[in-house]
Amino acid sequence: MDPKEFLMIPGPTPVPDEVLQALAKHPLGHRTKEFSKIFMQATNSLKQLASCQDEAFILTSSGTGAMEAAIANTLSPGESVLSLICGVFGERWAKIAEAYGMKVERVKVDPGQPILLEELRKRLLADKDRQIKAVTLTHNETSTGVLNDLQELVLAIREHGALCIVDAITSFGSIPINFTAWGVDVLIAGSQKALMLPPGLGVIFMSQRAMAAQEKSKSPKFYFDLAKYRKSLEQETTPYTPNVSLIAALKVSLDMINQEGIANIGTRHDRMKRALRAGLIGMGLKPFVAESHASPTITSVLPPSSISVDQIRRMMKERYQIRLADGQEELKSKIFRIGHMGYVFERDILMTLATLEVSLTALGHRCPSGIGVGSAITELTNVGGFVNK
Amino acid sequence: MDPKEFLMIPGPTPVPDEVLQALAKHPLGHRTKEFSKIFMQATNSLKQLASCQDEAFILTSSGTGAMEAAIANTLSPGESVLSLICGVFGERWAKIAEAYGMKVERVKVDPGQPILLEELRKRLLADKDRQIKAVTLTHNETSTGVLNDLQELVLAIREHGALCIVDAITSFGSIPINFTAWGVDVLIAGSQKALMLPPGLGVIFMSQRAMAAQEKSKSPKFYFDLAKYRKSLEQETTPYTPNVSLIAALKVSLDMINQEGIANIGTRHDRMKRALRAGLIGMGLKPFVAESHASPTITSVLPPSSISVDQIRRMMKERYQIRLADGQEELKSKIFRIGHMGYVFERDILMTLATLEVSLTALGHRCPSGIGVGSAITELTNVGGFVNK
Repeated sequence: MDPKEFLMIPGPTPVPDEVLQALAKHPLGHRTKEFSKIFMQATNSLKQLASCQDEAFILTSSGTGAMEAAIANTLSPGESVLSLICGVFGERWAKIAEAYGMKVERVKVDPGQPILLEELRKRLLADKDRQIKAVTLTHNETSTGVLNDLQELVLAIREHGALCIVDAITSFGSIPINFTAWGVDVLIAGSQKALMLPPGLGVIFMSQRAMAAQEKSKSPKFYFDLAKYRKSLEQETTPYTPNVSLIAALKVSLDMINQEGIANIGTRHDRMKRALRAGLIGMGLKPFVAESHASPTITSVLPPSSISVDQIRRMMKERYQIRLADGQEELKSKIFRIGHMGYVFERDILMTLATLEVSLTALGHRCPSGIGVGSAITELTNVGGFVNK
Repeated sequence: MDPKEFLMIPGPTPVPDEVLQALAKHPLGHRTKEFSKIFMQATNSLKQLASCQDEAFILTSSGTGAMEAAIANTLSPGESVLSLICGVFGERWAKIAEAYGMKVERVKVDPGQPILLEELRKRLLADKDRQIKAVTLTHNETSTGVLNDLQELVLAIREHGALCIVDAITSFGSIPINFTAWGVDVLIAGSQKALMLPPGLGVIFMSQRAMAAQEKSKSPKFYFDLAKYRKSLEQETTPYTPNVSLIAALKVSLDMINQEGIANIGTRHDRMKRALRAGLIGMGLKPFVAESHASPTITSVLPPSSISVDQIRRMMKERYQIRLADGQEELKSKIFRIGHMGYVFERDILMTLATLEVSLTALGHRCPSGIGVGSAITELTNVGGFVNK
């Protein structure tokens, strides 16, 4: 007998039993009043979670589908897009926009670095005749574990006037976001992250400005045509058969999220990040990202020089059934990534540090026994005790 | 206490407990060997079920997403498409192709009628310089309950040389299809029909000719770009996070389908259609579609003149928790539709007839008591006893 597999990866993330039980219920007909009620509750609850006073649409697709919806609905072929890139998922925006025939300019930083506000300002200032129609960016870069300062980046984009299109797939539901007050135009989320569900739903929030752009956009679209979703929403339904089971489960997970409150959830994730980083540093490991812009939901780590990422991931999986993620693309085998978003708590961070210490020691790493967990406990004590909520 | 809701609608359809239990399992990481194994088993099992020797891709979307994938991957803006339309879903192909900038010619029949082979032949013969690049059609038209003769239609299209793009959403898994031998190029299925799952997965089968067209297609695409799916499939994975839970459940439902065998399943559906139609006619109701092209998975019925569709559907739901579907668009309130596909058996047909008779009688319809079930039993006896498999 082995312990239950535990996903400390950046998605899919652990799913609460209440949510799994909702998934095990027989699907409702999608054109019934019963489903419409759940669907509208979930939609309104998502808007509340994003502090969004405009539109929210639930798509039956993964997050990438929602990203494509963002581009195809707000832009037309030939228009200019500025893509702020600090990793694989920032680059994905640029690739989608290129696939749809937009002119894409990339502003890149090295992996592990955040998007630079000054670079953005400089580029926008140079665009005197307002050619840039939209700026794409990533709130929390999944491939590196960098959290960008969304509020200040959006502020700079609003001064210019371009649409601000944000991937919040690994931040939404774990980090408070104020969609309307900050002035975000399009924001994307996915079910399998802090929303604590299996993959299969994307969420797209649209400001009034974004909906106005939607009406003018000439990009081809059908399944992701948000005009149809808006029209259907007036009848409390969706244009095409939605994943009714995942939406019913989403209602359950959103109730759990609302019960804790997004401010408390934000604090919980911040504490997990601090404890984990303190423990890793205590064991002599080096986090890949500096404290100042480290993500509260994903921590990337450089392995000790004599031990490979593959060895660490394999031992964590085989001995403890804990899944850690490899780096992606150019960071493959160079870092490992620990996901801690959604249904994850301090006790999981302490468990991860303890099992990682045993694994590293078995692989030849040397550190004082218990130093990982010890350092995390000290950090948690410093930031104010062990309250989970 | 009420009985469990029973979905006699054309999808979502009843889901077996074994499949619901699979959905209640904790999701696997999508980049694990465990998931890859299940994913490849499901993919290969789908190919076997379609008798497809070429490509099959599982998409995290509803069936309409897979339809869009079919168009965006095989055609380019400005190319000519012939759309054979016998209902709402035939028209959907035309709308998607128009959204992507193709020139669409519609060949329509009245609702309740099948696509006419002679009309198709005539139109294809007239296309001497081979302008028509693709013909779209619907195998089983969900909005009316018409089954088209796919094999003979495909044969005519193959003689011309156009790509043959088929919506088999409400036939696949309940009616045997021989994808490769019949010469189909693109075929679409959805999870919430005879595959006995909740909505959320689309399936697309592609012939070698269709894959060659894919390489040349200039339509914009990203989430549904099948070149990426093919490349990922070589690594036994998907390009974007798939709905791992639904794919694991699909493996379970495909195992159940394989155990019964598609030939037996086809016979079961044919028997259900015959029994249901005999019972309806026995009660003095008129099936909307003639016997010769009636669907084995969906039966549309005209209500008695003094009773509305809404009254019948409401009483069946309130008294018996059995859901029937209304007509769609121009057929709304004119017909009601009984879905009988996937995890549905003769006993469910008999139950539906019995409860429908009570409901109709309560609403003022007159017929000899028990005539619906009696007529069905006679029909079943005539076609060869009560063997389910």
